[in-house]
Amino acid sequence: MAAERGRSGTRNVGVGIIGWGTIGCGVIRLLREDADRLAERLGARVELRGVADLDHDRRREVRVPRSLLTRDARALIADPAIDVVVELMGGLEPARRFVLEALAAGKAVVTANKALLAHHGREIFAAAERANVGFGFEASVGGGIPIIRTLREALGSDTHRAVFGIVNGTSNFILSTMAAEGRGFAEVLAEAQRAGLAEADPTYDVDGIDAAHKLALLAQLAFGVALPLDAVHAEGIRRIDAIDMEYAREFGFAIKLLALARDHGGEIEARVQPAMIPATDPLASVNGAFNAICLQSAALGRTLYYGQGAGMMPTATAVVADVLDVARDRMRGGPRLPPLGYPLAHQRRARVRPTGALSAEYYLRIAVRDVPGVLGAIAGHLGRAGVSIASVVQRAGRVGKGVPVVIRTHAAPEKDLRRALARVAALETVLEPPVAIRIENTSG
Amino acid sequence: MAAERGRSGTRNVGVGIIGWGTIGCGVIRLLREDADRLAERLGARVELRGVADLDHDRRREVRVPRSLLTRDARALIADPAIDVVVELMGGLEPARRFVLEALAAGKAVVTANKALLAHHGREIFAAAERANVGFGFEASVGGGIPIIRTLREALGSDTHRAVFGIVNGTSNFILSTMAAEGRGFAEVLAEAQRAGLAEADPTYDVDGIDAAHKLALLAQLAFGVALPLDAVHAEGIRRIDAIDMEYAREFGFAIKLLALARDHGGEIEARVQPAMIPATDPLASVNGAFNAICLQSAALGRTLYYGQGAGMMPTATAVVADVLDVARDRMRGGPRLPPLGYPLAHQRRARVRPTGALSAEYYLRIAVRDVPGVLGAIAGHLGRAGVSIASVVQRAGRVGKGVPVVIRTHAAPEKDLRRALARVAALETVLEPPVAIRIENTSG
Repeated sequence: MAAERGRSGTRNVGVGIIGWGTIGCGVIRLLREDADRLAERLGARVELRGVADLDHDRRREVRVPRSLLTRDARALIADPAIDVVVELMGGLEPARRFVLEALAAGKAVVTANKALLAHHGREIFAAAERANVGFGFEASVGGGIPIIRTLREALGSDTHRAVFGIVNGTSNFILSTMAAEGRGFAEVLAEAQRAGLAEADPTYDVDGIDAAHKLALLAQLAFGVALPLDAVHAEGIRRIDAIDMEYAREFGFAIKLLALARDHGGEIEARVQPAMIPATDPLASVNGAFNAICLQSAALGRTLYYGQGAGMMPTATAVVADVLDVARDRMRGGPRLPPLGYPLAHQRRARVRPTGALSAEYYLRIAVRDVPGVLGAIAGHLGRAGVSIASVVQRAGRVGKGVPVVIRTHAAPEKDLRRALARVAALETVLEPPVAIRIENTSG
Repeated sequence: MAAERGRSGTRNVGVGIIGWGTIGCGVIRLLREDADRLAERLGARVELRGVADLDHDRRREVRVPRSLLTRDARALIADPAIDVVVELMGGLEPARRFVLEALAAGKAVVTANKALLAHHGREIFAAAERANVGFGFEASVGGGIPIIRTLREALGSDTHRAVFGIVNGTSNFILSTMAAEGRGFAEVLAEAQRAGLAEADPTYDVDGIDAAHKLALLAQLAFGVALPLDAVHAEGIRRIDAIDMEYAREFGFAIKLLALARDHGGEIEARVQPAMIPATDPLASVNGAFNAICLQSAALGRTLYYGQGAGMMPTATAVVADVLDVARDRMRGGPRLPPLGYPLAHQRRARVRPTGALSAEYYLRIAVRDVPGVLGAIAGHLGRAGVSIASVVQRAGRVGKGVPVVIRTHAAPEKDLRRALARVAALETVLEPPVAIRIENTSG
């Protein structure tokens, strides 16, 4: 380790940051403002010794001396004064290469990059194990909520049955604003984009992709299984309408984009879907950009972890906690735990339970032309697929092109429901593909 | 370390348990049932090598071979095959002596004993630092909720402004049952006692003492200050009545036994009191024997940790997580962190903000004889003490000896309120000491 005797006689830890963006600014600010307290906790000073970014000129929230700036991430990785490389550039390449090179060079690495870990986690975790260096990724899920550490260490003594929750702040902000203000998806999305709460291309957030990345990581940590990203079923929230929020409330539910993974004795269910959850469920009152993650564990039962899921300072807090952690381990000879909390060699292959095989009650909203016989035709298709109807609501009022028919079903396998809905969608009197929202029983 | 080469070639870790009670049974069960998974996580087997208890004959949920049983805790502590001593006997003495002797003998120690740490924490933490051995106490606060680890490590990079929440499951069970069923304190307490949810002598739980013990620990961890137990103001829930629950609901509040510590720039406020919190606050929906702890931190903002606060398996989970942690550190030469996450030498002395100096709005319920002039006399005493009235409700119906007058005050210093209430209580027309419940602004 490139350790120096500082003026105080303690060894110091050199940090290099790749990616001088919002989170990078937060990390730099914490390293500066809390320097004394961090030194007290670690027994060594944490010193920023390099920042790599292609753009040195854009105005940022914090400044960095020219002498610490480089455009060459590889030079930063190779710098012997740098012990811990913090990857905050995002994206897959060249972030992947930089992380692997840093690990191969014997640096500890901290990252907030969930996409990178969802796509290339196995390769990166293996490289960290091989190099016997610390690898921290607390900031990749749940912003400042210490869920990764909790799964890796605090609850490493328990067996987890399920991990689920609200892990995408942007979509939760949109859904909770729609619910509170009775407005439509497109309008609230546009507002969120203007306010900087959603990206110009919101696909990752509103189509469940970001949540699927995070769920894949959580499931690997919780269940000790490999879970390739394509094993996570992802649906988004684009088709949710203000009227669905109204019906949800009337039925005693809230609509949330729920990420859920469950271990059915070795067969893993993993999906991101908008879901109706009981209004009394603690997750139902998680509003705005907040995140909350629940664990269902054998010994511990239900626990819940709640906080800001994103944002400069919450995420930076998690990054700096990881820097302290890998630095502490490094000063003592190496990581005390592999990245996932268990050796990758012990990771089991997951059999994936196809979502079609899962049974649930559903809320269906079907836009129809208001003519006699339409309800009978819909009910016929559902019945022939084995989906039985619990209740039907049809009221005055229009949504989009037609009149909404709202149906609650009894529990049915998703594949049967999908088959029925394909036929319903083909009816001449049905004007748009039906909206189907799973009614989630999170206590199961 | 007394380490052996097991059959698998890994080093093994010997555990000795003092106190073969409910939690002890849970720990033994986890060590047995999860032995392979724990070994995989730790890289060594965790072996139960001794159990000390005076009573070997009582029937318990799990059995222990005679060869492992002793009545002599000191023999267990002295046993070179035991690396980690788990103290689960509870109480102050001889638990304190056993813990100090184990630390002095170079053993790592894990305990669930919050009373011990609230009373003798400084001495014990200092002994653990001096001996350079691991000391785990996750199970002492919040059962299986990993709050101590979170404060010690995950959020060690942040500055905490406040820590508060529901940390006593028994009183929360009583209050939430009273609220849900409209029943009185004494009746629900008796039922909880019959169900084994409250002790025969419920003082520790219902008078706020257990919560004060936990709060003293949380404040030391969160703020880096010494906080003697007598600096924590503790009030209980005995005087809360079903009618208070009704009024709380009507005003949009829930009544909870709230433990709260706040760092006012070096001056610490620490108190356990029944409080009215907004029904929309996440803490308001924490019901039954569940616990929830909130942190308000500089960078991270609000986070919340929720789970079962007590019970055999949740508490045992926390104990076993600590055993893994101290064993892991031990295999690598010693603890990577002092017990509190920072060296005791860096602990600041707290100036304690007296509760009398704190301002709040209050809910008052005063049992009066229903005669003319009584409200005027009460209002006069409040007014002369500088406590102004926001609203008064007086309805038909009796509570105990009199008719209840319910008053909401504007914010006033507690000492002024107490002075006024002492005078109100002395009125001939006031039949019982007034009930005063702070209306808590947890967002502050």
